[in-house]
Amino acid sequence: MWAGRFPGGPAALMRRINASLAFDKRLYAEDIAGSQAHCAMLVAQHILLPEDGQAIAAGLEQIRREIDSGTFVFREENEDIHLNIEARLAELIGPAAGRLHTARSRNDQVAADFRLWVRGAIDRVDAAMKELQAALIDKADAHADWVMPGFTHLQIAQPVTFGHHLMAYAEMIGRDRSRFADCRRRANECPLGAAALAGTAFPIDRDRTAAALGFDRPAANSLDAVSDRDFAIEFLAAAALAGIHLSRFGEEIVLWRARRSASSG
Amino acid sequence: MWAGRFPGGPAALMRRINASLAFDKRLYAEDIAGSQAHCAMLVAQHILLPEDGQAIAAGLEQIRREIDSGTFVFREENEDIHLNIEARLAELIGPAAGRLHTARSRNDQVAADFRLWVRGAIDRVDAAMKELQAALIDKADAHADWVMPGFTHLQIAQPVTFGHHLMAYAEMIGRDRSRFADCRRRANECPLGAAALAGTAFPIDRDRTAAALGFDRPAANSLDAVSDRDFAIEFLAAAALAGIHLSRFGEEIVLWRARRSASSG
Amino acid sequence: MWAGRFPGGPAALMRRINASLAFDKRLYAEDIAGSQAHCAMLVAQHILLPEDGQAIAAGLEQIRREIDSGTFVFREENEDIHLNIEARLAELIGPAAGRLHTARSRNDQVAADFRLWVRGAIDRVDAAMKELQAALIDKADAHADWVMPGFTHLQIAQPVTFGHHLMAYAEMIGRDRSRFADCRRRANECPLGAAALAGTAFPIDRDRTAAALGFDRPAANSLDAVSDRDFAIEFLAAAALAGIHLSRFGEEIVLWRARRSASSG
Amino acid sequence: MWAGRFPGGPAALMRRINASLAFDKRLYAEDIAGSQAHCAMLVAQHILLPEDGQAIAAGLEQIRREIDSGTFVFREENEDIHLNIEARLAELIGPAAGRLHTARSRNDQVAADFRLWVRGAIDRVDAAMKELQAALIDKADAHADWVMPGFTHLQIAQPVTFGHHLMAYAEMIGRDRSRFADCRRRANECPLGAAALAGTAFPIDRDRTAAALGFDRPAANSLDAVSDRDFAIEFLAAAALAGIHLSRFGEEIVLWRARRSASSG
Repeated sequence: MWAGRFPGGPAALMRRINASLAFDKRLYAEDIAGSQAHCAMLVAQHILLPEDGQAIAAGLEQIRREIDSGTFVFREENEDIHLNIEARLAELIGPAAGRLHTARSRNDQVAADFRLWVRGAIDRVDAAMKELQAALIDKADAHADWVMPGFTHLQIAQPVTFGHHLMAYAEMIGRDRSRFADCRRRANECPLGAAALAGTAFPIDRDRTAAALGFDRPAANSLDAVSDRDFAIEFLAAAALAGIHLSRFGEEIVLWRARRSASSG
Repeated sequence: MWAGRFPGGPAALMRRINASLAFDKRLYAEDIAGSQAHCAMLVAQHILLPEDGQAIAAGLEQIRREIDSGTFVFREENEDIHLNIEARLAELIGPAAGRLHTARSRNDQVAADFRLWVRGAIDRVDAAMKELQAALIDKADAHADWVMPGFTHLQIAQPVTFGHHLMAYAEMIGRDRSRFADCRRRANECPLGAAALAGTAFPIDRDRTAAALGFDRPAANSLDAVSDRDFAIEFLAAAALAGIHLSRFGEEIVLWRARRSASSG
Repeated sequence: MWAGRFPGGPAALMRRINASLAFDKRLYAEDIAGSQAHCAMLVAQHILLPEDGQAIAAGLEQIRREIDSGTFVFREENEDIHLNIEARLAELIGPAAGRLHTARSRNDQVAADFRLWVRGAIDRVDAAMKELQAALIDKADAHADWVMPGFTHLQIAQPVTFGHHLMAYAEMIGRDRSRFADCRRRANECPLGAAALAGTAFPIDRDRTAAALGFDRPAANSLDAVSDRDFAIEFLAAAALAGIHLSRFGEEIVLWRARRSASSG
Repeated sequence: MWAGRFPGGPAALMRRINASLAFDKRLYAEDIAGSQAHCAMLVAQHILLPEDGQAIAAGLEQIRREIDSGTFVFREENEDIHLNIEARLAELIGPAAGRLHTARSRNDQVAADFRLWVRGAIDRVDAAMKELQAALIDKADAHADWVMPGFTHLQIAQPVTFGHHLMAYAEMIGRDRSRFADCRRRANECPLGAAALAGTAFPIDRDRTAAALGFDRPAANSLDAVSDRDFAIEFLAAAALAGIHLSRFGEEIVLWRARRSASSG
């Protein structure tokens, strides 16, 4: 991205520091989806010719298939996933590839990709948490009357039931899921159209792009849209709390095993 | 609390390690409010005699006034705020003081106090954030057409307006407030009635206590109710994000001052 | 400190944000020791008149006694410990108090106080760790041949001896002490003389001040001397590792108690 | 590793959770070096037949070449780097491969590999820091008399020289290097011989293995040797401080660029 500023290009070390391909390649599906939505909007708004739009859409579709099937050749010198996809698109369809970047900047593109990725991660985590919660409730139901000791500080305290014990975890998982849902709601705004930071003079339709990508709405402020990463931090915070709950559950099983071996040993 | 387990009581060092009065004394108003609600419920449920209830309520009210006015004598040997209040209540009203602890344990009492305190902290923070947000919007409105440079990496980029710039912060503060509100909603369940961990055999009315303290509902599971501290961690996480936004705002003012002095220097 | 820059002085809120007295008052002994060493050096270098030096030394000594005995009146409006001591010194000895600040800035003064405080904290922690290490070695010696089960993942594994088990902790504490010693060595350089950041034109003797305060040498670079806080971070990192070891030791006792109650239950 | 405990082996999900190959494959050179040193010691102590030792050494050497050249086939079902190398060794030399594990456990093997890896990382980081420090000193020397403004809070303060400014960073890097050196010294003890946790009954020579791998000495306590990961945490803490210094250096260049563009703009 910065190569043009230095005669001879950046040093090899600088290339390695800048390269993000190793970790941002996992954004490929989101990057392609974002480009497809942007392209369709540009055509609908008569900013892009329909034939260019068709070439771009077909090219992106082919790139997706190549990456899915493992035949895509990633190049480290195209430092990130976005440049890798752009370079391949230019190979496939020629100069029309460059028109995809009309009314868009790397800033709003990356912000959109990242939001889509986190939203997908939330959905995957939530599906797993929902299954776990259901399993806990089923087991709790089946063992609603199994009496067991409650523990405080690992010492035996008042009796409870195994069902009651498991439902405590169902509550924790429930709060976790509610936190992920709140995070998803705040994350689900579309930064596309913010361009570098100040929007664009092209007559774009931000609602259309947002809707095509499943966002609830376009982000309200362009400066905030390109710089906001709250959604990633909030997701990590919610995941950390969920991790504490799962770790408590796992540790308990380890402790109970140890207790059993001590009792029977 | 543990003194009874050791002949001669714990060592002085152990006392110092256990003592939490220095930081939990700030829970006094919540502790008294919780006890008053619990006491009123015990009377309404005929678990406590009305005359005992009146003595307890009057004693607690006097203790609150003493702490408010700075005349309360805190004793380190009563290691936490709860024991300090209990000891003073016993001085003031005699044996009836002990009956306040009917159908309640230190576990659910501390959990309730802590939730009330965090809820109060959320409300104070939100009131301040709301004021800041309103100030940002007012300033943005007044300077909606002031053109200024947008910056990327501290370099001048496209022009924006000062109003637009300020509205980016209004967005951030808006997300912060929304996070605090979500945290409050999850925190606002009443653990009282969970007792040590397994509830109580007394015919208590958990809905009544919860309502009296402004909780949305009693916590659903007693084991979870006494151990859950998610609300505190979630509050800190939301506060950390808010801190990032405020720090960015402050840093920007420092940088603009430096730039101005460089320009005019 | 900044009051002079604003007509009418800062707002009450700003005062509260700036005030550090609540936590930096614990630096009082270090601040007084630093001022005494600086004052003696100024006199020896003929920068300060001997009679001023004596007045300052006597005044600082009285302030130390007042704070030690709890009779010193701290004033929130003198926002930090340094201003509190300066203001009291001016009350006690008049205009000579101001001359103590010759060839010194708040920057190098605070840096020196903070280093002295951390050095003292290291010495206190190390003394306690040394005692613990000695106790572990004594117990290990006394139980060198007590056979006990070794554990992996809380499951009984190969037999070891209780002495061997305790000596593992003696090793951990030994590493902790070695880390604290390394941190002390790096911390023990004297920033005094760096002034605001660029040193001073007065003919000061930095070696003399450094030696008087028990520092190994004056800091080599003035810009680094006033901004370096590595020593505090390194101390916290070493303390965190020590905390992990102590927590493991404590957790083990809890687990063994639980195991015993399960075995005998 | 645990497969034998469950009829039918662990579930596919459990395999994925257990697999560490994706990140521990970078330990391959350390794992092979550790095995070679262990093997040579076993032969020297007459625990292993010379012909078995030769076969093992040759096999390990071939594996190293295969991994170096990218022809080694990693198998996810051999969940970590250690099992991958063991399995390949068995393919290459047959049953003798199993004898390499005499008087060794996965616990001391992994601990040794990890220490060797962190020691190598320290050496690589230190070489780079040494170069940076030398460059700073050279530049400082060349610009010892260039006068420039010193800054406090980004505002111009007293004049300093550019050489003096750079030497502040040379000091910081010097402290970083000294921290890495201290960490290396503590890390450089050999856990081999601790076996699972309680040592081994075979007549091994721990000094020989330690010396062959460049360790300063064998670790003193077997329980500590297999569980200690202080060295990794201490390395990360030292690296974090170094990161702060480098970030300050980088940020300053960004700020100076911004200031220059403001001055000339």
